[in-house]
Amino acid sequence: MAVRPLSLHPDRLLPADPALRAIARELYGAVCDLPIISPHGHTDPSWFSDNEPFGNPSQLLLAPDHYLYRMLYSQGVPLEALGVPSRAGPPDTDPRQAWRTFAAHFHLFRGTPSAMWLNHVFVEVFGIDVRLSARTADHYYDVIDAALKTDAFRPRALFDRFGIEFLATTESPVDSLDHHHAIASSGWGGRVVTAYRPDPVIDPEYPGFADALEAFGEITNEDVFSWKGYLEAHRVRREDFIAAGATSTDHGHPTAATADLSPADAAALFGKVVKGGADAREAELFRAQMLTEMARMSLEDGLVMQIHPGSFRNHNAALFASHGRDKGADIPTRTDYVGGLKPLLDRFGNERELGIIVFTLDESTYARELAPLAGHYPVLKLGPAWWFHDSPEGMRRFREHTTETAGFYNTVGFNDDTRAFLSIPARHDVARRVDCGFLARLVAEHRLEIDEAAELAADLACGLARSAYRIDANETMAPARRPA
Amino acid sequence: MAVRPLSLHPDRLLPADPALRAIARELYGAVCDLPIISPHGHTDPSWFSDNEPFGNPSQLLLAPDHYLYRMLYSQGVPLEALGVPSRAGPPDTDPRQAWRTFAAHFHLFRGTPSAMWLNHVFVEVFGIDVRLSARTADHYYDVIDAALKTDAFRPRALFDRFGIEFLATTESPVDSLDHHHAIASSGWGGRVVTAYRPDPVIDPEYPGFADALEAFGEITNEDVFSWKGYLEAHRVRREDFIAAGATSTDHGHPTAATADLSPADAAALFGKVVKGGADAREAELFRAQMLTEMARMSLEDGLVMQIHPGSFRNHNAALFASHGRDKGADIPTRTDYVGGLKPLLDRFGNERELGIIVFTLDESTYARELAPLAGHYPVLKLGPAWWFHDSPEGMRRFREHTTETAGFYNTVGFNDDTRAFLSIPARHDVARRVDCGFLARLVAEHRLEIDEAAELAADLACGLARSAYRIDANETMAPARRPA
Amino acid sequence: MAVRPLSLHPDRLLPADPALRAIARELYGAVCDLPIISPHGHTDPSWFSDNEPFGNPSQLLLAPDHYLYRMLYSQGVPLEALGVPSRAGPPDTDPRQAWRTFAAHFHLFRGTPSAMWLNHVFVEVFGIDVRLSARTADHYYDVIDAALKTDAFRPRALFDRFGIEFLATTESPVDSLDHHHAIASSGWGGRVVTAYRPDPVIDPEYPGFADALEAFGEITNEDVFSWKGYLEAHRVRREDFIAAGATSTDHGHPTAATADLSPADAAALFGKVVKGGADAREAELFRAQMLTEMARMSLEDGLVMQIHPGSFRNHNAALFASHGRDKGADIPTRTDYVGGLKPLLDRFGNERELGIIVFTLDESTYARELAPLAGHYPVLKLGPAWWFHDSPEGMRRFREHTTETAGFYNTVGFNDDTRAFLSIPARHDVARRVDCGFLARLVAEHRLEIDEAAELAADLACGLARSAYRIDANETMAPARRPA
Repeated sequence: MAVRPLSLHPDRLLPADPALRAIARELYGAVCDLPIISPHGHTDPSWFSDNEPFGNPSQLLLAPDHYLYRMLYSQGVPLEALGVPSRAGPPDTDPRQAWRTFAAHFHLFRGTPSAMWLNHVFVEVFGIDVRLSARTADHYYDVIDAALKTDAFRPRALFDRFGIEFLATTESPVDSLDHHHAIASSGWGGRVVTAYRPDPVIDPEYPGFADALEAFGEITNEDVFSWKGYLEAHRVRREDFIAAGATSTDHGHPTAATADLSPADAAALFGKVVKGGADAREAELFRAQMLTEMARMSLEDGLVMQIHPGSFRNHNAALFASHGRDKGADIPTRTDYVGGLKPLLDRFGNERELGIIVFTLDESTYARELAPLAGHYPVLKLGPAWWFHDSPEGMRRFREHTTETAGFYNTVGFNDDTRAFLSIPARHDVARRVDCGFLARLVAEHRLEIDEAAELAADLACGLARSAYRIDANETMAPARRPA
Repeated sequence: MAVRPLSLHPDRLLPADPALRAIARELYGAVCDLPIISPHGHTDPSWFSDNEPFGNPSQLLLAPDHYLYRMLYSQGVPLEALGVPSRAGPPDTDPRQAWRTFAAHFHLFRGTPSAMWLNHVFVEVFGIDVRLSARTADHYYDVIDAALKTDAFRPRALFDRFGIEFLATTESPVDSLDHHHAIASSGWGGRVVTAYRPDPVIDPEYPGFADALEAFGEITNEDVFSWKGYLEAHRVRREDFIAAGATSTDHGHPTAATADLSPADAAALFGKVVKGGADAREAELFRAQMLTEMARMSLEDGLVMQIHPGSFRNHNAALFASHGRDKGADIPTRTDYVGGLKPLLDRFGNERELGIIVFTLDESTYARELAPLAGHYPVLKLGPAWWFHDSPEGMRRFREHTTETAGFYNTVGFNDDTRAFLSIPARHDVARRVDCGFLARLVAEHRLEIDEAAELAADLACGLARSAYRIDANETMAPARRPA
Repeated sequence: MAVRPLSLHPDRLLPADPALRAIARELYGAVCDLPIISPHGHTDPSWFSDNEPFGNPSQLLLAPDHYLYRMLYSQGVPLEALGVPSRAGPPDTDPRQAWRTFAAHFHLFRGTPSAMWLNHVFVEVFGIDVRLSARTADHYYDVIDAALKTDAFRPRALFDRFGIEFLATTESPVDSLDHHHAIASSGWGGRVVTAYRPDPVIDPEYPGFADALEAFGEITNEDVFSWKGYLEAHRVRREDFIAAGATSTDHGHPTAATADLSPADAAALFGKVVKGGADAREAELFRAQMLTEMARMSLEDGLVMQIHPGSFRNHNAALFASHGRDKGADIPTRTDYVGGLKPLLDRFGNERELGIIVFTLDESTYARELAPLAGHYPVLKLGPAWWFHDSPEGMRRFREHTTETAGFYNTVGFNDDTRAFLSIPARHDVARRVDCGFLARLVAEHRLEIDEAAELAADLACGLARSAYRIDANETMAPARRPA
C-alpha cells in the first residue's frame, strides 16, 4: 500500500451543501482565531509548573488516552502492547513498538473524533504530511520524538502557541495545589487554574475513601469525622481553591440524585458513612445530600457547580482488578434528572446568584428533561455534549435537541474535558466548526438572521463560557446583558 | 445598535438544498392556503362568545404565554416584571414596562419556535417591519395596542381572517358550556366547539378534586359519590359536550398507565378515592382505571379519545406555592407505553369503531413504542409532535422516527394545542412547511413519487385531522378510503 | 385515477445534494454487485431442499409478511381478508381477493421500507412497470402467478439469480435438520446453512416448553431433566448444527439480562424450571443464566453468539389467542444492556476467541450503551439496525449514533433477518445505498478520505459479515487485519 498524503481541508466538518458551506465558512472565519477558554479539563498542572519536555510519542499521545486504547482493546490488542500502565506500573514495552502497533490499527478510528483530533495534531502541531499507517509509523515516531526534545514543544510554549486564555485543571480536596501555586509565582503569564473535585471525600464507594477522609482532616486541620467539621473542611478547601484561581466545582456521580435531609438526618447519615457502615442505598443518599450541601456553599462562595452524572465506572471487573480506574471501561447509563434534581431544585432552584451546570451521557434526556429544566430554572445551565458525545454528530444532536426549548443562552459554550493537552486546539476547532454549521443551517432556512448567527458563533466559542464560568475578561460582555 | 428590518422569507423552514427546496415549495404552495383545522387547543371560548377587544399587548401576548416567560425566568427575570399573575392576582406592573423587559431579552429566543411564531404574528397580523429589541419596544407596543382597539382585531374578525374551519377548546366536566351555547346561538358562522377534559374529576391528586366532584354532582344531578352515579355523571356530561359540538375527549395524566379492574374492585377503589383515603399508588390506579372507563364510553358515544401523558406538573415547588399551575414548570418524564397501555388495549385494542390518539413528551418512545403500537392496533393513532417538540426540529424527528413503522396514515395531522390565539396560523404554517420539507426529501431520494407527496401534504394539513377527529366536511374524503 | 408507471430510480436512497450524490454513486457502484452474505434470517430450508414452485402471489408475498398485514390490520382490515392463518389454519379466503384488498390499501405504505422492498421485487424480480393499486391488482396477480409457475422462479433458481453467497436459516434444537442435510447431499451448489436458536428449550415461558424439552431429550439421547444432561444435550446439538454448516447461535430474549450463578445454584434453578415451578422472576433468571452457559459453549466450539433482546412478544392478547405467535403484535421495550450484560461480561468479556453480536430495538441505547460497550469489550460487536429500524432512516441513525464511539469495525455488516425470500436482494440493496450515502457525507465533510470510504463500503457490504460470522471465503481478508 502506498504512503498517502495527509492534510487538513479548510472546509472540514462544514456542511457539504454549497449555500450552507458558504455561510458556515463566513461564520467560522470570524471565530476560528478567538482565544481558547477551557473551563473544564484534566491536564496535569505539573506540566505547566515544571515545564519539562514531554516524554516520547507513545507516552504522550497513546498510553494516557483512553479513547485510543479502548478501541484497540475492543479489537483484541492487549493494553500491555500499547504501554498502558497496570496496577503494577507501566509495562516493559518499547515505546516505538507500541507506536507501531497503534499505527497498524489506525484504520479502526475511521469516522471517529479521535482520528480527527489526532490528524489535527499531526498536521498542525508536528507538521506531518503523510497518513499514519504501519508503513509510516517509524517516520511519525521519529518526527514527533525529535520535536518533543525541543524547547518549542515544552508545555508553556505550546500553551502560548495554542492561544489558550484560560485553562482549568481538576484537583481533589486533598491536593496541595503546589503546582498551581508554583505557576502563579513563576512569572509566566499563562492562566492555569484549578477546580474543586471533591468526589474522593464525598463518595463513600470511591476507592480509598477512608484514606482520603483522613488526609482531608490533615490538610484542613478540621475534625472531618464530625458532620460540622466535615462541612467546614469543605469550606476551608473551597477557599484555598478559590485562592488558586478556581471558579468552579465538579461532581462526577453515578446518578443525578440529590437530597435535602434535615441537619439531624444528614449528620446521622454522615455518622454511618464515616464508620464505613453505609450500604449502597445510604452511600447514594449521602452523595445526593452532598450535592445539595455543595450548592449551598456555592451560593455562599460563588463557585459555579458542575454535575457530571451517569457513568457506570470501571464496568470491566477483571480489567479494573488488573489495571485500576480510567482504563476505557466506563459506560454511560440511563439517567433521571427530573426526579433526581428535584430536592436540590426545591431548595435552591430559584436562586439567581447560584450557577449549576448539568451534563449528561444520556442523550435521550436532552430534549425530554434537560432543555425543559434549563429553560425554566434560573440556577440551571446545560453543559455541552460530553465525553462519548463530544464529536461532530454528538454536538449536532446536542444543538438540535436542546436549542428549541432551552435556547442558546442556557448553554455554556464548549468544554474540552481532556487530559490530552495537544488535542485541545483540535477539540475547540471541531466544536466551532460544528456550531457554525448548525447556525448556517438556521440562517439558510431563514430561522435566524446572519448578524444573529455571527453574534452567537462568538458567544458559543468564548462568551458563554466566560459568563457561565464567571471568568473575568475586561473585553467581554455577559451575553445575556447585551444592549439593544 | 441600529434598528433592523423584519420580514418573513417565503422559503423559511424549507430545506436549503436547491433541489429539495424546489420540490418543497411546490408541495407547500398547494397547501399553504388550505383552511385551518384545530382539533385540540386551549383558547378561551368567551373570546368568541363575547367578541370583546383583546387587552393590551403584554396582556395578550406575554402574560399568558408560558413558552415566553419560562425562558425569561430561566435567565433571571422575575415573573412579576412580565405581568404574569401570581396566586394573589395580576401584579401591579405597567404593561408597557413589561413589554420593554420582554423586548430587551428577545435575543434569548434565537433559534426557538417562539421567535418564529412571534415574528409571524408581528409581520402578518400587525404589519410590523422592524425587529423587536429594546430600541423598538415602544414602537411595537404602540402599533399593537392601537390595532387591538379596532374592530378588525376582535376575536371573531381574526378567526375569520385566519381561515379557521374548526376550532376546539377544552373544558372541564363542571363547566357550564355557556360560552359555547352563546356562540352557537349567536348567528356567527365560526365553528368553535368544546372537548371533554375530565382530569379535575378523575385525578384524585388534582388541586381542588373534592370541590370539583361536588360540582360534578350538582351539574349532573347524579350521586357522584357512588361508583355507578359517578360513571353515569360522566355519560351525562359527555352527551352535553357532544351537544356543544365536541368530537373528542382529552386526558392529561402523569403516566400512560391504564387498568382493567373488575367492577367490584373498581367500585371499592372509587370508594377509597371519594373518601380522600387513596394513597399515591391508588390515585395512579384510579386514573389508570378511568382511562379504560373513558374508552368504554367512547366506544358507546363516538368521542375520539386523546391521551396526553408524561408531564411532571408544577415541578418548581416554590413557584407553584406562589404562582399556582401552568407557570412554565411542567417537565417531561420517561414514559412507558408498552406496559402502560396494555390493560386498556387488552380490553378494547381491536375495536374498529374506537379511536384513541396517543401523544408523548418522550421522543425515545416514537420509534421504539408508539410507531409499533399504532402500526398494529386498530384503535391507536399517533398525535403529532407535542409541546416542547412542536418545533421544526421536533416535527422533523417525529416524521423521521414514526413514518417507517406507522406510516403517515396512523398519524392525525397537526394540533396547535395553544392558548395563544394569534399564533394559530403561524403554528399551522410551521407544520405545513416542515412536513412539506420532509416529503420533499423523500421525493428527492426517490422514496416517494411527487403525486403521492402532494396527496400526503394535503392529508397532513387537513385530511387526517378531519378523519381522525371525526369532523364532518362534505368536501372531504377519509384519506384511508380513497378510491384507486 | 390513471394507472401510473413504476420504475426504480438508479439514484434512489442516495443523498439529494449533488456533491454527496456523486460520491455516493461512485461508492455504491463498486459494491452494488458484490455477492449477498445473509448470516441471519428466517427463510424456510425446505424451499431449497425440495425446490418446489412457490404458491400464489398472496400466499408468497402477503400472508407470511407481518410487516404488511400489521399495517393493514392497524387500519381496520381483518387478517382473514388477507389470508393470514389463524390457530384454526388458513382462512377460506380467495387469494386473488386477498391481493385486491392489499392493493387497494397500498398507499398506507407510503414512506415505509415495505413499499420500497416490494417495488424492488415487483420491478426487478417480476418485471412489472405500473404501480400497485386497486386498479392494477389483477394485472399484478396474473403476472406474478404466471411467473411462479415457471422453473425460473423456483427457489434454487432465484437463489442463484440473486447472487447469494451464504444464507443462514434458524432452527430449533429439536429440528431434525433434514432439509439442510438434503440440500448438502443434493449436489446443488447453494450454501444454505442453519443457525442454533435454542429459545424453545431455554425459555420456560415459551409456549410448548415442556414438550420441546421432551423432544430435546429424544433427539439427543441425553437426560435433559438433569442439569448436566441438559447442558450436554446443548453441546450435542450444537455439534449437529455445526456439522450442518452453522457458524452462529441466536437468542431472542425479552431482556438483555445475564447471570453467572454457581453450578449448584444453576442446577437448583434448573430443577425448579423442569418441574414447571419457576415463577416469572426465576424464568428470567434461568434465561439469563443460559446466555452465560451458551457463551461458555461458544468459547469451546467457536459458534458466534447473537443476542436479540427487547421485544415484548404477542402484546395483543386477543390476537394471540385467536391467531398465535408472530402476527405483527411484537412491540419493542426499553432495554438495559449496561446492567444486563455485566454478569456475562464479567465472566467472558475479555476473551479474544469469543464473538458475541448484540442487537437492539431500543435506539436510545445505541450511543449511550452499545457503542461504548462494543468500543471496549473484545467479545462484543454490534448487530445492524434491526427489525423496525431496518429502514433508511433507521440505518442512518444506527451509523450516526454508533460510529463515533464504536467505529465501523465493531459492527458486523448487514442482516436481512427476513422470511420474505424475494425481498433479500432489495434489503441488501437498501443497506448498501444507505451506508454509501453515510460514507459520502463523511467524505464530503472531509472526515474520511475517498479511498477509506471505498474500503469501508466493501467491508460493510460483505467483509465484516464474513469475518464476524466466521464465514470462510478464500478471497476475503479479515478487515481488521488488513496490511498497511
